[in-house]
Amino acid sequence: MNTTHHSLIKAAYGQKVDRVPVWLMRQAGRILPQYRAIRNKLSGFKELIKTPELAAQVTIQPVDELGVDAAIIFSDILVVPEAMGLNYNLVEQKGPSFPSTIETREDIDKLKVLQHDEDCPYVGQAISLTKQELNGRVPLIGFAGAPWTIFAYMIEGTGSKAFARARKFLYQQPVLSHQLLSKITASTINYLRAQVDHGASIIQLFDSWAGILPPDQYRTFGLSYIERICSAFPDVPVIVFPKGAYYARQELAEVDCRVVSIDWNMDPRETRDLLGDVKTLQGNLDPALLYAERSEVQAATKSMIEAFGRKRYIANLGHGVYPDTPLDNVKAFVDAVKEYG
Amino acid sequence: MNTTHHSLIKAAYGQKVDRVPVWLMRQAGRILPQYRAIRNKLSGFKELIKTPELAAQVTIQPVDELGVDAAIIFSDILVVPEAMGLNYNLVEQKGPSFPSTIETREDIDKLKVLQHDEDCPYVGQAISLTKQELNGRVPLIGFAGAPWTIFAYMIEGTGSKAFARARKFLYQQPVLSHQLLSKITASTINYLRAQVDHGASIIQLFDSWAGILPPDQYRTFGLSYIERICSAFPDVPVIVFPKGAYYARQELAEVDCRVVSIDWNMDPRETRDLLGDVKTLQGNLDPALLYAERSEVQAATKSMIEAFGRKRYIANLGHGVYPDTPLDNVKAFVDAVKEYG
Repeated sequence: MNTTHHSLIKAAYGQKVDRVPVWLMRQAGRILPQYRAIRNKLSGFKELIKTPELAAQVTIQPVDELGVDAAIIFSDILVVPEAMGLNYNLVEQKGPSFPSTIETREDIDKLKVLQHDEDCPYVGQAISLTKQELNGRVPLIGFAGAPWTIFAYMIEGTGSKAFARARKFLYQQPVLSHQLLSKITASTINYLRAQVDHGASIIQLFDSWAGILPPDQYRTFGLSYIERICSAFPDVPVIVFPKGAYYARQELAEVDCRVVSIDWNMDPRETRDLLGDVKTLQGNLDPALLYAERSEVQAATKSMIEAFGRKRYIANLGHGVYPDTPLDNVKAFVDAVKEYG
Repeated sequence: MNTTHHSLIKAAYGQKVDRVPVWLMRQAGRILPQYRAIRNKLSGFKELIKTPELAAQVTIQPVDELGVDAAIIFSDILVVPEAMGLNYNLVEQKGPSFPSTIETREDIDKLKVLQHDEDCPYVGQAISLTKQELNGRVPLIGFAGAPWTIFAYMIEGTGSKAFARARKFLYQQPVLSHQLLSKITASTINYLRAQVDHGASIIQLFDSWAGILPPDQYRTFGLSYIERICSAFPDVPVIVFPKGAYYARQELAEVDCRVVSIDWNMDPRETRDLLGDVKTLQGNLDPALLYAERSEVQAATKSMIEAFGRKRYIANLGHGVYPDTPLDNVKAFVDAVKEYG
């Protein structure tokens, strides 16, 4: 199914669109009653990810309910380390935890490189089912965590304010760090290739913990691996979301991606100046603003579009939508983009 | 005791110094065996804070052991909300938690404004004891959390990745938010005034959660209250540490503080350009870098001083030293500043 006529894909390639496309990070999830109805019947979040029929169903829900211009496959960034051999537990509201973490060369050697489809076939299956159901209505976004973020979880074992253990590893074991990051990168390329082969039309790299590294380290241990992934996908637009790494924006202009997604701290006009005309920008409404009055949501969405401009732009939040956001305000956001955009 | 001849105070006022002064955020703490010996005999962290003799003792330890150019009173930013009537628990390694949080106007009305000395006399007592013991060797730094950070804990109840609840409150209850921030600010001014009266020669405002607000909200709910506090202390240099709020640097040039402390993400040269010659800068070595080889610590410290320049500069880390940092590397950092600075 060719989806190049969709506004999201056209915007990613810098082509003219009739209207600014809009979607929300974490749009498939707890904000939707339809999602909660399915999720509450299951034993856990991972069961939902690993059941392609259900994953496809919740992936499509926001397209029907919110009228967004894209679907993003329902999954989790930590399926990659799991497929590499590092199992994790996911407790909603508490975040992920890894019973064992990576500490030594032997630990890294034991990890396997995720192979195309073999190691987490359920994601490809969910994508195929979703594509079939969507029937070309909107494009499907595939995604993965960026290597540094996956690395951070594999070393730290849980989410953390400072990821001091993961950052200690970078300083004390730079050679092993590169070895692990290379293995994660190879796995991620295979994983994303499988997603594209099954029908993802565009892919997003989530670098959720980009912002905790100093600029020189992010260059060495973050951006260089993102570059490797982007180079492996000349055929698909890539969205890079380097959350918090405001200092890396200028360097991102040189990275072979089509779209840079920015968080709510980053100024749209300043970011345009830094990145120039070569990238499409995505973002960046403060997810907490969706707790405000409807009229404030509408006004802020309009200001956001004016700040980014209608060209080379994909409307989104600056991070995932918070699970307890009032559904009406999510709709007000989407509708405001459609009206003004 | 007049301490204006000390290099820290001179650097804060932009006067010429013989050598760059150096201290570390969280220097009084678990990195020191002398601290652990005292702490391990006590039931908890709060007992240490509330026992002036012991608080004074651990405040002075890093001056003796590390040779730093300042002492910072051993305390916690959350003594202010506690003195206002909101009790908290502190579990080391897990962070603080408030059994009740602020939700309504009534909750805010019930809070008292902390009065000079009456509501947490132990901090003033600890400062007096410390001054006596220090006998003019180094100046003593007093401190408080910045109003937005204290507000965030009082609403959220715990530390958090996104402080979504506190940020929701800003959007849904702007009037109550200003009311609570004003009360926190009045309390903080009284609290810091008591510290100065007891002998603190310089004060630091820790805005640990500055970086999670969008720029316009930080202006309204963050900076404006910091300004109020700075204006209340024309007689003492104030250090503002707006962690993560890189976007606010230019505006900080207009705030009536002497020193801006920056985290390890912010580029020293760029920050000088943004803030101009009117402020002294403090920071910003990545605390995780102290996990590296000694020679790397030395080289990075030298590069840092070269990037900041020797004028209007106080050497420090970009955040508090991590508790498991090797003591030898902390010493290598301090010694490197003394050697190169």
